[in-house]
Amino acid sequence: MPTPFTPTRRQLLTMIGQVAGTAAMYQAMTSLGFAAESGYTGDLSLQGPRQGRRVLILGAGIAGMAAAYEMRLAGYEVKILEYQNRHGGRCLTMRGGDRYTEMGGHEIACDFQDGNFFNPGPWRLPVHHRAVLDYCRKFGVAMQPFVMKNNKAYVHSQHAFDGKPQRIGHVEKDMRGHVSELLGKSLQQGDLDGQVTLEDREKLLEGLKEWGVLDSQYRYRVSDDLGGVRGYDVRPGGGLMADTKPSEPIDLSPLLQSGLWDQVFNFNSYSFDPPMFEPVGGMDQITDAFAREVADVIQLNARVTRIAQTDNGVIVTYADGARGGEMREESADWCICTIPLSVLGQLDVDCSDAMRRAIGAVPYASAFKVALEFRRRFWEQDDWIMGGVTYTDLPLVQIAYPSYGFLSEGPAVLQAAYDTATAGRTFTYSWSTMTPQERIDAALAFGRQIHPQYDAEFMSGASWVWHRVDWSLGCYGEWTDGLRDAHYETLCKIDNRLVLAGEHCSHIPAWLEGSLLSALDAIQRLDQRENA
Amino acid sequence: MPTPFTPTRRQLLTMIGQVAGTAAMYQAMTSLGFAAESGYTGDLSLQGPRQGRRVLILGAGIAGMAAAYEMRLAGYEVKILEYQNRHGGRCLTMRGGDRYTEMGGHEIACDFQDGNFFNPGPWRLPVHHRAVLDYCRKFGVAMQPFVMKNNKAYVHSQHAFDGKPQRIGHVEKDMRGHVSELLGKSLQQGDLDGQVTLEDREKLLEGLKEWGVLDSQYRYRVSDDLGGVRGYDVRPGGGLMADTKPSEPIDLSPLLQSGLWDQVFNFNSYSFDPPMFEPVGGMDQITDAFAREVADVIQLNARVTRIAQTDNGVIVTYADGARGGEMREESADWCICTIPLSVLGQLDVDCSDAMRRAIGAVPYASAFKVALEFRRRFWEQDDWIMGGVTYTDLPLVQIAYPSYGFLSEGPAVLQAAYDTATAGRTFTYSWSTMTPQERIDAALAFGRQIHPQYDAEFMSGASWVWHRVDWSLGCYGEWTDGLRDAHYETLCKIDNRLVLAGEHCSHIPAWLEGSLLSALDAIQRLDQRENA
Repeated sequence: MPTPFTPTRRQLLTMIGQVAGTAAMYQAMTSLGFAAESGYTGDLSLQGPRQGRRVLILGAGIAGMAAAYEMRLAGYEVKILEYQNRHGGRCLTMRGGDRYTEMGGHEIACDFQDGNFFNPGPWRLPVHHRAVLDYCRKFGVAMQPFVMKNNKAYVHSQHAFDGKPQRIGHVEKDMRGHVSELLGKSLQQGDLDGQVTLEDREKLLEGLKEWGVLDSQYRYRVSDDLGGVRGYDVRPGGGLMADTKPSEPIDLSPLLQSGLWDQVFNFNSYSFDPPMFEPVGGMDQITDAFAREVADVIQLNARVTRIAQTDNGVIVTYADGARGGEMREESADWCICTIPLSVLGQLDVDCSDAMRRAIGAVPYASAFKVALEFRRRFWEQDDWIMGGVTYTDLPLVQIAYPSYGFLSEGPAVLQAAYDTATAGRTFTYSWSTMTPQERIDAALAFGRQIHPQYDAEFMSGASWVWHRVDWSLGCYGEWTDGLRDAHYETLCKIDNRLVLAGEHCSHIPAWLEGSLLSALDAIQRLDQRENA
Repeated sequence: MPTPFTPTRRQLLTMIGQVAGTAAMYQAMTSLGFAAESGYTGDLSLQGPRQGRRVLILGAGIAGMAAAYEMRLAGYEVKILEYQNRHGGRCLTMRGGDRYTEMGGHEIACDFQDGNFFNPGPWRLPVHHRAVLDYCRKFGVAMQPFVMKNNKAYVHSQHAFDGKPQRIGHVEKDMRGHVSELLGKSLQQGDLDGQVTLEDREKLLEGLKEWGVLDSQYRYRVSDDLGGVRGYDVRPGGGLMADTKPSEPIDLSPLLQSGLWDQVFNFNSYSFDPPMFEPVGGMDQITDAFAREVADVIQLNARVTRIAQTDNGVIVTYADGARGGEMREESADWCICTIPLSVLGQLDVDCSDAMRRAIGAVPYASAFKVALEFRRRFWEQDDWIMGGVTYTDLPLVQIAYPSYGFLSEGPAVLQAAYDTATAGRTFTYSWSTMTPQERIDAALAFGRQIHPQYDAEFMSGASWVWHRVDWSLGCYGEWTDGLRDAHYETLCKIDNRLVLAGEHCSHIPAWLEGSLLSALDAIQRLDQRENA
């Protein structure tokens, strides 16, 4: 880099004066300015109901609880009917002692040690999921960084490098180096002179040299400088320890043929941009915080069977678990229904034909997770992997290392297998057919190819298969562009006295933020209708 | 990506059997295997002293305290003489109520609110600094991720984009996109056919398309896919919120001319690879943990003036602050001296001429920091910057956002200016001439160009200038290749009964790890000499 101007003390103080007095300072990016990026402004401005208006909400997930919280604040009388004996919906956390009987009759038993847990559903928050983060701030949910990208974690293919996992940072930096070298060659050969000005060409060459850590001939080769970027075979030490030895890059051809570069692309997503976050102590801390606000209006164990509409309101029929399944009715002026479409499609719902078609049109994505508890954090102690995600072409697809309890001595839990049926991968269908024990066996058998310590350190496991959950029948609404064009607007529109919410009514499927924003949007429109 | 093979349940279970039985599993990366990367093995294997042997250690920084801890464990009698009235050396944390009078007579007053702090010296730990992390594990120092790279933080130039800061993720992804497009063109034109095989060319084109988010004609253009990687002008919402609008990339030429790509290269360093870590509650938690182990052998307020050597031992003369500065002597069989060379060079030391020249040869780098406390976390609330570092060509060089207390409501502290006199930048010399108040004024005046909220939210500030610290006279030993060749080995070698340690005796200057490894290496050599 060029040497910047170095002011003397007097010059520096003069600069300060000039800066302080300047009128040309760039326009401040205020909260208002940035809010434009988001449908969420932090200000709902509900006008509130006419006298004594009642809203019935179906489902005590984040959408239903947020709707209840905001509508009650605005003056509506609210009630939530929840099918399960718990709040939180798909945002849940399993801890030692938890038991869950899945469809098919198998019981999932979680026997993790105190303080250990796993999140079968959402497990991390992008920093731009402002609505969720803003409620966490308001409700005092403590947040910690979730390590998504760890350059020390692995990418792995059974068919490359003799099955030996490669560090993410190595693969990424080597590809960057090779790409820089090749483009440098092209630029020097003048191949791109028609596309790039001479001035840009020089800047670009200078930049590629630093970005790709190229030598003076623009080659990507082992060097001391490369050690400072890619790491070392023998790292710099203290005193008279052995001489530093920079690590050797992987050649372009084997790297390309390995397919491992593709795995690194997993980190490209805007949603995975650093930093990500997680609540301290498990994802259910978020929904628990909402529940603290609205627990008094949630009726658990209420299995809705029918949503009837009149001109002026709704009548919802449900089996009341607290009274031995006795069928009961609740009436209200409005109904906000957050029941997953996979379940809702099987209920008796009064709504337009268009909405009924929309409800039936969206398939639900399959997804599974297996979590394994080990006696010690061997991934930290042996492999220097503190947090982050390893990707592999093995059917376990990814291993996520915990972002909490770093360096502690006791047992810890890996999210040892996870995938959804997207991006052309359908491993999840196979895993969904397995018994809970078979899933643990599979996660161990595959995972030990990456972490041979599995055998010696394994304690217990738990798993989750979203297609075996009777209250969701899948993980999330799997929209295509065609389905969106045909049904999305209908699905979200207020249908007489009924409006739907939940991640399926959003452009952010499977994320808490989508669910929450869908609820905030629905209640704003409902409130406008109420006051129209 | 190609669709992977999807096994049936039966096939999957068969695969597991095969995998479990395979003998060709890659060789386990055990702790032993990885230790080869590091001079630190976690196993010192000191043989211990002959009867009643005494070691005098000068300086209660991490090097001195680690030496004391390990040598006492091995059976040596140890004592530490420390100049200051505190342990920890350059690893220190300032909190509300702390006062420090720097050389020149100005007092730095830190008036931060409870729970807020700033680290004038080391402030983050790379994950491969295994020795420090291993002691933290052993001593139970809780560790949390330190957000180094935040794609939402800024790069900024006064002379680019009308002085408007740009998101790091935008600049990085745009450069990646443009580089991919250009290399894609070259490859398609056949410019590199001599360098890349046809098969690699296809793989590379496929990879560049995904890495750079290129369209079907290998162009880097705004698209829905690009939104999913680069972000949005209007982000995906819930319900019937406004339509998603992907953000527009910056063109190649203005981006190159802005120099902002260069700033992103700051994150290239292996030391900054994600994830980095920090102890919960301030960096002094690390040295406090060492001090808990060795406090009983530390004598504070002991100003060493002379290190004399005999054939069989050392005699150290010091002014004893506990007795009004009375001159006293301590004898020992060995002396481990961790006093910075900048100070040591001014003391009366019996050692070889070669070592004396080495001590005098290494200049000490200048470095400064300014920390500012603000009423609220506007960087999080307004700018969505949660942790990380912003770089700028303003003389403040960088702003670091706290990696603790995320989303909390109260006052918080930015490391609002920081630089060392390296990489051709010498801003730190100017800052070092300013009074503490002038530094705060300067950090505010420059910083408000990036965060206009400074004016409304400022509460108080503190600063640190390493060349105004009488016990270090600079920040760290600034080695060049030439100086290393001439003096490093001499400096580290045992000189009769004296051996030096500290970051200046390492290949990792300015980092705790260098200091710690230098001590571990020195005591191993000393122990071998003792037992020779």
